[in-house]
Amino acid sequence: MKVKIAILGVCGVLGQRFIQMLNGHPRFEVSAISDLYLGKTYLEATGNKWGKGSGGFDENVPDYIAEMEICSATDIDRDIPLVFSGLPPNVAGPIESELAKRGHIIVSKAKDHRLEEDVPLIVPEVNPDHLDLIERQRKKRSWDGAIVCAPNCTTSIFSLPLKPVIDNFGVEDVIVTTMQAISGGGYPGVPSLDITDNVVPYIGGEEEKTRVESKKILGSIEKSAEYKFASYCCRVHTIDGHLECVFVKTNKEADAEKVKSLMREFPGTGLYTGPVRPIIVRDEIDRPQTRLDRLAGEGKNPYIGGMSVTVGRIRNDEVLGLSFLSLGHNTVRGGAGEAILIGELLDREDYV
Amino acid sequence: MKVKIAILGVCGVLGQRFIQMLNGHPRFEVSAISDLYLGKTYLEATGNKWGKGSGGFDENVPDYIAEMEICSATDIDRDIPLVFSGLPPNVAGPIESELAKRGHIIVSKAKDHRLEEDVPLIVPEVNPDHLDLIERQRKKRSWDGAIVCAPNCTTSIFSLPLKPVIDNFGVEDVIVTTMQAISGGGYPGVPSLDITDNVVPYIGGEEEKTRVESKKILGSIEKSAEYKFASYCCRVHTIDGHLECVFVKTNKEADAEKVKSLMREFPGTGLYTGPVRPIIVRDEIDRPQTRLDRLAGEGKNPYIGGMSVTVGRIRNDEVLGLSFLSLGHNTVRGGAGEAILIGELLDREDYV
Amino acid sequence: MKVKIAILGVCGVLGQRFIQMLNGHPRFEVSAISDLYLGKTYLEATGNKWGKGSGGFDENVPDYIAEMEICSATDIDRDIPLVFSGLPPNVAGPIESELAKRGHIIVSKAKDHRLEEDVPLIVPEVNPDHLDLIERQRKKRSWDGAIVCAPNCTTSIFSLPLKPVIDNFGVEDVIVTTMQAISGGGYPGVPSLDITDNVVPYIGGEEEKTRVESKKILGSIEKSAEYKFASYCCRVHTIDGHLECVFVKTNKEADAEKVKSLMREFPGTGLYTGPVRPIIVRDEIDRPQTRLDRLAGEGKNPYIGGMSVTVGRIRNDEVLGLSFLSLGHNTVRGGAGEAILIGELLDREDYV
Amino acid sequence: MKVKIAILGVCGVLGQRFIQMLNGHPRFEVSAISDLYLGKTYLEATGNKWGKGSGGFDENVPDYIAEMEICSATDIDRDIPLVFSGLPPNVAGPIESELAKRGHIIVSKAKDHRLEEDVPLIVPEVNPDHLDLIERQRKKRSWDGAIVCAPNCTTSIFSLPLKPVIDNFGVEDVIVTTMQAISGGGYPGVPSLDITDNVVPYIGGEEEKTRVESKKILGSIEKSAEYKFASYCCRVHTIDGHLECVFVKTNKEADAEKVKSLMREFPGTGLYTGPVRPIIVRDEIDRPQTRLDRLAGEGKNPYIGGMSVTVGRIRNDEVLGLSFLSLGHNTVRGGAGEAILIGELLDREDYV
Repeated sequence: MKVKIAILGVCGVLGQRFIQMLNGHPRFEVSAISDLYLGKTYLEATGNKWGKGSGGFDENVPDYIAEMEICSATDIDRDIPLVFSGLPPNVAGPIESELAKRGHIIVSKAKDHRLEEDVPLIVPEVNPDHLDLIERQRKKRSWDGAIVCAPNCTTSIFSLPLKPVIDNFGVEDVIVTTMQAISGGGYPGVPSLDITDNVVPYIGGEEEKTRVESKKILGSIEKSAEYKFASYCCRVHTIDGHLECVFVKTNKEADAEKVKSLMREFPGTGLYTGPVRPIIVRDEIDRPQTRLDRLAGEGKNPYIGGMSVTVGRIRNDEVLGLSFLSLGHNTVRGGAGEAILIGELLDREDYV
Repeated sequence: MKVKIAILGVCGVLGQRFIQMLNGHPRFEVSAISDLYLGKTYLEATGNKWGKGSGGFDENVPDYIAEMEICSATDIDRDIPLVFSGLPPNVAGPIESELAKRGHIIVSKAKDHRLEEDVPLIVPEVNPDHLDLIERQRKKRSWDGAIVCAPNCTTSIFSLPLKPVIDNFGVEDVIVTTMQAISGGGYPGVPSLDITDNVVPYIGGEEEKTRVESKKILGSIEKSAEYKFASYCCRVHTIDGHLECVFVKTNKEADAEKVKSLMREFPGTGLYTGPVRPIIVRDEIDRPQTRLDRLAGEGKNPYIGGMSVTVGRIRNDEVLGLSFLSLGHNTVRGGAGEAILIGELLDREDYV
Repeated sequence: MKVKIAILGVCGVLGQRFIQMLNGHPRFEVSAISDLYLGKTYLEATGNKWGKGSGGFDENVPDYIAEMEICSATDIDRDIPLVFSGLPPNVAGPIESELAKRGHIIVSKAKDHRLEEDVPLIVPEVNPDHLDLIERQRKKRSWDGAIVCAPNCTTSIFSLPLKPVIDNFGVEDVIVTTMQAISGGGYPGVPSLDITDNVVPYIGGEEEKTRVESKKILGSIEKSAEYKFASYCCRVHTIDGHLECVFVKTNKEADAEKVKSLMREFPGTGLYTGPVRPIIVRDEIDRPQTRLDRLAGEGKNPYIGGMSVTVGRIRNDEVLGLSFLSLGHNTVRGGAGEAILIGELLDREDYV
Repeated sequence: MKVKIAILGVCGVLGQRFIQMLNGHPRFEVSAISDLYLGKTYLEATGNKWGKGSGGFDENVPDYIAEMEICSATDIDRDIPLVFSGLPPNVAGPIESELAKRGHIIVSKAKDHRLEEDVPLIVPEVNPDHLDLIERQRKKRSWDGAIVCAPNCTTSIFSLPLKPVIDNFGVEDVIVTTMQAISGGGYPGVPSLDITDNVVPYIGGEEEKTRVESKKILGSIEKSAEYKFASYCCRVHTIDGHLECVFVKTNKEADAEKVKSLMREFPGTGLYTGPVRPIIVRDEIDRPQTRLDRLAGEGKNPYIGGMSVTVGRIRNDEVLGLSFLSLGHNTVRGGAGEAILIGELLDREDYV
């Protein structure tokens, strides 16, 4: 029997990606969808915006969801154990708390609860053990449900390849510069006049997220990782896919060839949406490239790839010692796909 | 009386920029133009390609040059003291040597001679004293003329703002990541299918150039600067303008506010093509932006701006300590404009 | 003595272009600027948005206007005879009427009054005689001032080259398809996700404007032109410049070579902002191109070109008989530049 | 048992699309691949260029073909009945003739033989009966094999929706203006500096192809269709997908609503690669859009959509009477996909 799930913010870019990636899901059944357009069907509410906020969508709303009616978040049935939230920041916080209090487990893509001490911030391949925080959260808050967060897209994309590095060599310093896609700004989002023939070298809040979220993910359940960190986050003119330049100082010397092997061998989750190889390492000098590699990495989900992170140009340099490029799909690996993968992990671990 | 000059490679992107920026020049008179299309007029040889390889050109070839005939490099009259070379790499080397031997002073944008010990590699605001190498070069090579090189565009754009930093605080480490424009690849250059909705995280030879050329420019005439260096050079989808993220470890603590002041006060050359403020510092959190700031900085040349480098987001970070963004126009400041400025410096210093 | 002028909607894309093009104007002196940000200086109100909505701006607000204070439209002094309106549609209508009633002459870029029978809709090179409607307007409305409209950008760009055709051969049918730039949508305007790697084959209201406005402009003061008309107006991924394919059936046979000559000889206005050649005809098979030709055509205004329309690929075809391409700068010729040119015409004709 | 096939020009953009679309094909088995890189494996010859020339490719060469060795066209075994040719123009002609002489049936995407009187030029849904020309061709040329051509991409995309119009109402005049994608220029193809922020209003040879090829396809086996025709073919900045504005004068009045129905009901071929609905009609005022609709239309091939043409904005206008927009994927429907569909038709009709 399938697990009933609900989606919050179902008409936005993230919500659309949830709809696409949950189409035909073997374990999850979309049983309620929520957004502002109460009483309308999904087709009525979304039709004209369907597929415009990111790439790789079919030209029409999938049949399975077209006629489902949009409800209010607070009208979600108590027998729906799992709720995916694609709500915008600040809006998400109180609604997610209310639903967790009512007994739902929320997997949220919003930033609002990410940094709370008793809220797990999960990249399933990296820190699945952080789900133990759920127990602590429930005790502390006297909730039947729980909130689990997926990280900021940019953070997820470099934290994944950093995991085998920190585990094997220890990490003291990290510098990241990013070239992020316009879909990261939502829809309508980034004005075309701001990004055509341009780079915008600032994305509000992003640099602080990359710092504190990566330390939480790569630390233990008790304590964030302690490396020093600096980043510049830039918007470039690509539709999907964040490309990130990462410079790392390790405690123990990290030979580039050894790092390659460790990344290549880094294991997947075995879950439906999880890729067999979460980190794909390419040897070509000019890869990863955003358009060519962002859809790399399929789980068993046939609708879209994009769940692997592609790493390239791994090398030893003379400043911090180790550097590489990491590319991931911001609305799949760094978006709805990661949230669904967390949901599948919760399902396997019997939280739902 | 004006100084007669010749231009090599006059039909290419660099050559066209020379033609544009020398239009109405108060000291230089274009007296010979050289390229492969011997015997054709400039209009015949270039017309269809005019203005296609970079931005900011008028739609037609300037009248003053349209009917001038293209000659062979070796047919340049001996009474033309100054030669600007926009020749492609590998082609440039032997031709420039031959002309220097004949008594011309060559200002070259090609890489071929840049790293030779007795060849000055000049950013006029940074290391005009390196022109003293001309004397050494002439002695060693028994030439009447000389070769003087302008650096790689990317290097020029971060070396300029590094100059006040190295002078005031000393520099131990430098990390640079770049987002470079397509015009850097020449014309036809970068295929549209390679860069549309894409980032290409590698540009052949560029990273090594940024390392060795910046150390030569920022060092003394006897010895290159000795900081450790790492860079990733990436191509993004902009027409003109390289945006660069720079992380620096200084010997002495470099307070961000103090760095801002030093950069703002960094003096210009007073030359015709040189900007009053070679480094423009912006305080807005989202500047410099490629399209908005690449044409900043006019000398007295009315045809195009782009001779200043715009710096922004100067800050103290917890890894290397100092970081900032630097943006410059790759075919003006990092291209023909810098070569012309070197020519003006040579003129003022009585080399021509 | 200069004529005092005011600008409405001075912070938007059109307003910024007015500010740029009126910098140093020999006849007009900016004496009042109006927008929503009452009491702020122009720099405070616009600084962060300056230059973002179209190309060819300097990186900073011009000094002459930076500290001028923004006032309400209704606070414009009665001794300012001429008012340029860059107000948005629907907002513009009542404000412009109120100011005309108070005695100002309004030159408006908004659509609100364009089709009113007693309002001149002017392309200065095409139908300057339509200014006679001002007399009729004043009588009918008992106003001291008047409203004069500049047409929709797309319309202006094909009406100009149609003028010598209709005058010499008569016109029965016109088909136009357009490829319009994103700056036509204002700022923030077109979302980047809507236009990157895309064409949007519809622009609200545009096709009807091209029909009715072109007939009004190309008709007499008593009666619109009577050709049959069809158009598709599409948005493509260019920053500035509308490229238009025009197919025409003439009454008398219009030989392509004769049409070329007539367009080339089509006279300018002799006004400051007006180009010497309003229609530039190019012979190259692949011109006009948007990026290469949109800035063609300078008046005596040194700040930006873009006042000429460039026509190419003029030919006789077997369907309607005559076809050509027309390209113009939508925020200069089709925008603030045309309004200023109308203002200069009103000045010469002693209306102000 | 499967039909053995060979592919000529297998490393180029078309060749790569053949490889992708024939992966797992139920009837065709790739048995020989030909290109210039004799003796190399497909991976060696193509690896670095794989997927760069058009969208929708996986990031790696498919396993089934990676190690197959590239042979010369003249080394293709005689027992391979069907040969798909993705050879470039002018190169294709003599090679295809030679192979047809040897007994192979060639389905060619090259222009070289398209206009020969005894060569069928086929859009499978439009003129499958033209295959009867094969008999005539064989007699005339004394060949055992034959050459069958797929049309120019642009032509295919408007000929398909014109078919029900010409069949039901007759057609007297056709005007087409196109906005074509960069992948139509091959790889490396269109320089990025030529198309960024630009439209190029000319594509060599394209306008003549749209005229003569559409008349051949829409005519009978004995005689081309006789409408009058004019087109402008323009390059815009999209990766894949040609959007075309079509204006038609019909013999009998063609009501727009009736045209919609006829297009919607236009039948598919029932073949594996053929879409159920070859013409998709959309009612939204702003569709078709290149990025959203180019992948519409799947046959049973799971690797990529793009075999349907999407039509929108069908209307009656006052000039020629009927107008609509047509969008198709130039390297799928207008490329390898159409050739494969012709191959499937030849298979069903027992030519192979």
